[in-house]
Order: sequence, then C-alpha cells, then structure tokens
Amino acid sequence: MSLHESLTVIDGLIVSRWSRSVFESMRQGGIAAANCTCSVWEGLEPSLHAVAQWKVRLREHADLLAPVHKVEDIARAKDTGRVGVILGWQNSTGFGDHLPYVALFHELGLRVVQLTYHTANSVGSGCLESRDGGLTDFGRDLVAELNRVGILIDLSHVGSRTAEEAILASRQPVAYTHCAPRALKDHPRNKTDAELRFIAERGGVVGVTMFPPFMPRGNDSTIDDYLDAIEHTVNLCGEDHVAIGTDFTQDVDADGIRYFTLDKGTGRRLLEVGEVRNPPGFERLDGFPNLTAAMERRRWPEPRIAKLLGGNWLRLFGEVWRDPAGR
Amino acid sequence: MSLHESLTVIDGLIVSRWSRSVFESMRQGGIAAANCTCSVWEGLEPSLHAVAQWKVRLREHADLLAPVHKVEDIARAKDTGRVGVILGWQNSTGFGDHLPYVALFHELGLRVVQLTYHTANSVGSGCLESRDGGLTDFGRDLVAELNRVGILIDLSHVGSRTAEEAILASRQPVAYTHCAPRALKDHPRNKTDAELRFIAERGGVVGVTMFPPFMPRGNDSTIDDYLDAIEHTVNLCGEDHVAIGTDFTQDVDADGIRYFTLDKGTGRRLLEVGEVRNPPGFERLDGFPNLTAAMERRRWPEPRIAKLLGGNWLRLFGEVWRDPAGR
Repeated sequence: MSLHESLTVIDGLIVSRWSRSVFESMRQGGIAAANCTCSVWEGLEPSLHAVAQWKVRLREHADLLAPVHKVEDIARAKDTGRVGVILGWQNSTGFGDHLPYVALFHELGLRVVQLTYHTANSVGSGCLESRDGGLTDFGRDLVAELNRVGILIDLSHVGSRTAEEAILASRQPVAYTHCAPRALKDHPRNKTDAELRFIAERGGVVGVTMFPPFMPRGNDSTIDDYLDAIEHTVNLCGEDHVAIGTDFTQDVDADGIRYFTLDKGTGRRLLEVGEVRNPPGFERLDGFPNLTAAMERRRWPEPRIAKLLGGNWLRLFGEVWRDPAGR
Repeated sequence: MSLHESLTVIDGLIVSRWSRSVFESMRQGGIAAANCTCSVWEGLEPSLHAVAQWKVRLREHADLLAPVHKVEDIARAKDTGRVGVILGWQNSTGFGDHLPYVALFHELGLRVVQLTYHTANSVGSGCLESRDGGLTDFGRDLVAELNRVGILIDLSHVGSRTAEEAILASRQPVAYTHCAPRALKDHPRNKTDAELRFIAERGGVVGVTMFPPFMPRGNDSTIDDYLDAIEHTVNLCGEDHVAIGTDFTQDVDADGIRYFTLDKGTGRRLLEVGEVRNPPGFERLDGFPNLTAAMERRRWPEPRIAKLLGGNWLRLFGEVWRDPAGR
C-alpha cells in the first residue's frame, strides 16, 4: 500500500461541477472526504434545493459517496471505499438572515459555512469589497450560532477586517479552507503572512489552494509550485495548522466560472479568471496521489505529510463538530 | 399510579396555538407524544420556517418537550416526564411540489403528512372540494416517496375518492389521524362507515376527534358523546385500528379558526365554525385523564383502553417510520 493509500486524505474545498464522473475521479484520487460546496451566491430556497440535490446524489451514487455528519463518518467512508461528502457553503446568504435556519441546516448535514463570498452581505465584508466594515452585529450573532450548533466557520473569501473580527468572536477555531499566501502572489484573495499567522495562533487551519489564478505562475504552475505555497504556509503557521483545500473546479465551464466571478452571479465583474489549467499530473482530482508523491520526493517526514493531507482537518473538525444540545 | 399515568398516551393530532402554557397543559394531561401540526395552507418557505420554529421551541422548553424521530423516542419522552413532539403537516403543499424535499423534511423530523387540506392541490382533492378528481399522477409519486422515507400518510381532510386511491396506492398502512363518524353526524369532514372500514381493513388507524363542529351535539357534547363516537368506530374497525386524535385547537383565537376555514387561509369560506366549546372536563389538554376515567367507567377492558389511547398509534408508527436508505 502506498503512503497515499494509507492516509486519510481530506480536501478542504472542492467546487466542481458535480457528476458521477467527478465522484469517480475523487475516489480514484483516494479522497476520504471533501468539503463540497453547495451554495455560493444563492439565497434560502436555492440553497435548500442544493442540499436536497446532494441527498439525491448521495442516494444515487451510494457506491461512491457517503454522507459525513460526524468525524467518524470520514473513517467509515474510507473503510468502505467511498468518498465522504461534507456539505459546505461558501456564503451565509443561504440562511436567509434567519438564525433558526442554522440549526436546521446543521441537522441536514451542513458542516462548513463561509461567512461572505467575495463581497459584503448582512454578516460582513468579502475580500473583493472596496471597503471592509468588519463583522456586523448580526454577523456576531451568526458566529455565535454557528459555534453553538457546531458548524466550521470558513473565512477564505472574507475581507481582512471581517475575518480578524470573526476569528476573535468565534469561541471555536476557524479555517481558511482554501487560500494562497499573498507573499508569493499579490492578489486580494490571497492572505498576508500576518493573516495566516493570526488564524493559526488561534487554533485554526489554513487549507492551501492551488487555484492557478492565485498562484505566482498562474496556469504554468506545477505541483512543486503548489508545494512551495504549502511550505511557505507551514513555515508561518506550523505543520499542525496547514492542510489542503484544492478549490478544484473540475468540469466547471466558462459560464460557471463567470457565475463565480460576477457579484451575486449576475452583477459587476469582481475578478478576471480566464481559462483555468491545473498543474501537470494534478489536472483532475484523480491526480491526488501525485501530490503525496511530490511531498515524499521532498523528503517531508511522513507524520507531516499525514497532517497536511488530512490529519489537521480531522483535528479541527473534531473540535468544532458536535451534537448541539436540544435534539 | 392511575391507569392513565401508566399508559403511553398519544394524541394523533393537535393544532393548538403553541406556547409554554399549552405545553404545560399537555404534560399535565399525561400525553407521551402528539402529532403537532406545523403546516396547514403554507407553501415551502413558511413550512420550513415553522419547522425551524419548532426546533427553537424544543430547545427553549426542553424541560417539557422532547423531539420524536423514532418510536423509541416516545418512551424516552414519557420516561423523562416530557411530551414527545411529532412534527406533522396537514397539507403536502409545504413540499413545494419538489419530491427531494420529502427526504429533507423527514431528516428534520417530519413524520406525518396529510395529502390535502380541505381543497384540491397538485396531489389530489380535499373533502370540501366540490368534485374529487382522485389522486393525481404526482400524488402517486408523492405517496411512493412518503412510503420510501417512512412518513405516515394522513387522510383526515382528504376527499373520499382521493383517500381511497391513496390507501390503495400506499405500500404502508395510513391513517385518518382525526375524524368523526358520518353515521353520527352528517358532515363532509366526517367519514362514512364504509370509509372507516376500508382504511382499517388495510391496516390503517382511525384517530377519532372530538372537535365539536363534527359531533352530533356540537358544543353541547360531553366526554360520553366522544366515547360514543369512539365506540361506533371500534364496532366498525375493531379495537386494533382506533385511536385518539383530539384536534385540540387550544388557545387558537377567532382569527386562527378563520384561517383554517378559508381556502388557502384567505379565500372563500369552506365551512362555518363558530365558537368552539370542548366537553366539560376536557376543555383543555390537561383534561386527558378524564377521558381515560370515562373509559374505565364504561368498563372497557384495560388492554382495549391501552390500545385506543396510544398502543395503536405506536404499532402504526412502528410499521411506517424507519430510517430510509442512503443516509
């Protein structure tokens, strides 16, 4: 058995065009679990619709997929040769500004929620908003409710000030599920060294992304460039606070990318993302074993590789996810 | 311990104005569990809202209430001195005509769903509709999905033909959770002897209501009149197929009653319901022990009383509720 096969591999964020082909690719990549985005710009009803759609997928592809509600479900997925699906939102707009829906969606399996996506909402500001007014009063209530029910708070696309205030407001450690270091590429979606240190010092985890537009060499990036970004982050945060969040947009077409990059999916353009070309050997999710192999070639110790590829997510999920009282 | 206290008492339908006062009254009445209506005319979003509201109530009144998702939860509620809350809808409109929402609401605890309320919807006709066109094609799909996930089908307000076709279409026994015999009072909401026999012969259960407008003596009804209605139903269906479904509208004001009696809550008037006066000794839910005492006075055998007051619901719930595959 290869090192990769022996590890519990967790991807902190995938936002692909979901299909059986993608699920097969995930399984072939040896992924034990992934945070699967099912809401980006959408409000309450389409977000509910997306969760329902995932339940249908989980049933129709039960040979490939298993729902993850508890940390132990990840081991169960791996043991049964399936990919664990963690339902995640990249925005909090899906709650429709109604706090009791947080517990409801938690009951339906939602386990990761990003507070804002690119721009401002009723909770705070996004990283592409022109001014970041910080976490709103309702945002504080939402953070408290996400803490209470046990949903991991994601700050990847959140504005710098809002993110800092959310980290301080949260009683639980939080995550950048998918981001890259700004020291390597000056992009507003990337995080400064200070930001990366700040979240790690408070127990959080940084999932490093390899999304080409955020990498120094863009579409020419290699797996080794990705390892450089990971290494930079490990040097800042320590190997207990860094993980993988590929941000794989597998099979997402130009219209899909366009939807991500316009405000609310239809408004002004927020960022330019042309054709996305992933590193050779990791063009698709089934290339995951090549990431592990590259780490081995760099002679990273096995315990570090195990933490980066899944162990740190497991630790964080274990601290955050738990059965809320009252059910 | 009185006989009442020793029994697992289940009310097949309560549609009260929910408050701590009502919950205290339910506990004082020794109710182990009740099907609590949380959607009547409402579509998807307000029905979701109502379910979320119940989650808040279950948390805020956790000393009085316990959620019921499985049959065993009812015993647990009774053992801990609380009232088990079974979430139920008196209409299927809340699914928004989207079948995947059936499994979603099941996951949130919905365990009883009436197909139609008074009038026609996309599933079939109500008992107050001028013509009953029977179960629609989508209605058949909904029945199959309710069967698959394990939600009890309720036909109390459903039209005669639609109900008969639903009974035949359902792979599981179904219920009239709250109805009265038409032989005693000729009202379109009441069920004929043939209808009562039909559902029982197919394994179903009839919850007999004491809602005064459906009783022969209306607001002058006594607990003994209620027992007469129960006895009539037992004589038709056998004591294994009859139960209690009070239809208590405790603290519902005139506007609330008006909402129930206008089509979609705001349209044409469907039935006249003036002031509602419950039988002396059973004006409120805390009077439940007087129902048991009246049965004892009639010298009904204890095993029969146990079945009528809860045992038959337990049997039916046990047959219908189960974890659907795929979670």
